[in-house]
Amino acid sequence: MSDIALDPSLGSVDLTRQLCNIFSVSGEERAIADAVEAVLAERAPHLTVTRDGDTVIARTELGRERRVAIAGHLDTVPVNGNLPVRDERDPETGEAVIWGRGTVDMKAGVAVQLVLAVELDDPAVDLTWIWYDHEEVSSDLNGLGRALRNRPELFAADFAILGEPSNGTIEGGCNGTMRALVTYAGKRAHSARSWMGVNAIHRAGAALERLSAFEAERVLVDGLEYREGLNAVRISGGVAGNVIPDRCEIEVNYRFAPSKDLAEAEGVIREFFADADTVEIVDRAPGARPGLDAPLAQQFVEAVGAPPVAKLGWTDVSRFSGLGIPAVNFGPGNPLLAHADDERVPIAQIEATERALRNWLNR
Amino acid sequence: MSDIALDPSLGSVDLTRQLCNIFSVSGEERAIADAVEAVLAERAPHLTVTRDGDTVIARTELGRERRVAIAGHLDTVPVNGNLPVRDERDPETGEAVIWGRGTVDMKAGVAVQLVLAVELDDPAVDLTWIWYDHEEVSSDLNGLGRALRNRPELFAADFAILGEPSNGTIEGGCNGTMRALVTYAGKRAHSARSWMGVNAIHRAGAALERLSAFEAERVLVDGLEYREGLNAVRISGGVAGNVIPDRCEIEVNYRFAPSKDLAEAEGVIREFFADADTVEIVDRAPGARPGLDAPLAQQFVEAVGAPPVAKLGWTDVSRFSGLGIPAVNFGPGNPLLAHADDERVPIAQIEATERALRNWLNR
Repeated sequence: MSDIALDPSLGSVDLTRQLCNIFSVSGEERAIADAVEAVLAERAPHLTVTRDGDTVIARTELGRERRVAIAGHLDTVPVNGNLPVRDERDPETGEAVIWGRGTVDMKAGVAVQLVLAVELDDPAVDLTWIWYDHEEVSSDLNGLGRALRNRPELFAADFAILGEPSNGTIEGGCNGTMRALVTYAGKRAHSARSWMGVNAIHRAGAALERLSAFEAERVLVDGLEYREGLNAVRISGGVAGNVIPDRCEIEVNYRFAPSKDLAEAEGVIREFFADADTVEIVDRAPGARPGLDAPLAQQFVEAVGAPPVAKLGWTDVSRFSGLGIPAVNFGPGNPLLAHADDERVPIAQIEATERALRNWLNR
Repeated sequence: MSDIALDPSLGSVDLTRQLCNIFSVSGEERAIADAVEAVLAERAPHLTVTRDGDTVIARTELGRERRVAIAGHLDTVPVNGNLPVRDERDPETGEAVIWGRGTVDMKAGVAVQLVLAVELDDPAVDLTWIWYDHEEVSSDLNGLGRALRNRPELFAADFAILGEPSNGTIEGGCNGTMRALVTYAGKRAHSARSWMGVNAIHRAGAALERLSAFEAERVLVDGLEYREGLNAVRISGGVAGNVIPDRCEIEVNYRFAPSKDLAEAEGVIREFFADADTVEIVDRAPGARPGLDAPLAQQFVEAVGAPPVAKLGWTDVSRFSGLGIPAVNFGPGNPLLAHADDERVPIAQIEATERALRNWLNR
């Protein structure tokens, strides 16, 4: 079934190296999904395994009162001379790290999950392990979203943990994100007679000045502070070097606290750009409340020990919270190093994450 | 020598139609230059003809005290379903017009010149007729510039008339033009943590606001009013929908009165964008003073009758004034219709231009 044999018995640190070295850029997850499926078939008879495309879902069916879903994505962003991974010392902290593509985002998290999936045949709660494809590309390709649509019955749970890098602490919920195309119109004219036209690029200046002066809110949601952001991420306009431009387009990205729903976020954008000719929402994803008031979440926070913080980037926890399942991010690795060419994960953080998760699931 | 026979004996209106219907988009002037050279060889034994690429120079050598150079370009901008030309009524004024590509810019002017070149074998001044290639494309290809470099001795003159469309009135001199690339730098960051970056597009906002508020000067030069303009003609910036952009580039076009030299114009741009990270001048062409105090110019103004006005767009008169030769624009056609898909020239204006020029040259 798989040409590549994974060996979780060597522990999650070694398994991180094994997983990273299976090339698995988005769209090419077949080999790694095959390898995960094979190791479960061989070593985890206590799990019922389902395959959906390159997503692997493995469930205990122990009849426990509560069920926890634990998910991680198998793909990485493109490699940039940073595979195979190697052992190094962190240039800033001196810690022992595994260096290379995927170490942070998120093969170390997947390794911890896979070690525990094989090991824990009698956990305190029923478990649904999910390893999925296409997380690093556009939302409509996302393997977790696809599997949720295809097999919703497999995803029922009381709590969910996404193994996205969070420095081994709990990062609750996530900000929402919305992108809009904002256009300013003008009237073309020869630039030798500019007063006969209306310069659309000049018209956009006021909006950029407002963005520059804008102080994004810090919003407390369920005790965690979410910092927002409203930014122009692209701008374009112009016809030729001697023509007054009749169109200027600004692409805006709004990151908003999970206390706002999509309609409220859109309202903020439309009000901010009330002077524009058109405002078109081109991408939207709701935030997720941290959900830390759920009993299982509180127990998990206690087990991990460190105080939880807000997740600022959008993650797939929002797909769980959209189903009414409280969900948090919990994985080894510094999220600021995700996608970086010098991506690297501290070995001690992989081990600590594994310990915390094992202790809680066995309690 | 030429497959296409021009017949100037039918008059400048008919010759306009003949010239327009010889396809002559910039770079493809061979056929029309051949036709002009052939008609001069056949019908203008009083002219000494020189060919430089697709530029034709034809001179009287009568030993007159003064010499006037009269020039027009043979090329057009690309055709857009507007050839062959046809006779129509102007939709706005009801006048009889010739409609189609090249009628305004500037086959009607060339036709008037060619009729008079063949006819005037005993003018009051010596004449240098110049029909040249590559006016509608980048300045380094310009046939007038090339011929001036190759055969400067042919261009000595006391006064020059460029047949660019000017509604049959004298448009004196021209504004200068300068383009600059102005860049604002920033620092990339993930848009989920925008405060860790510096948004270059936001930084450009203040400059656009200043441009928007800017009141360009009106400058009197030798009695004519030149209206300036400072405009963003292009803008671009941005990396991806989730990245704070680290660079925003504005292309600016400054049209400045001929009382300013290139260094002064550059100074205006650099002062205006003092907050930018880089300002690179990418294109520059000096203006031309109207030179209406020259005796020949004053006689020409009297002969035409209508009061002269300032030429706002940049034209090749600047190449003559750069040689110290006073030069004006004088040709049939509304310059606002040049390059337009509904380019059209009033027949009465072609005839009036021909009359005024003939009367003056015969006086």
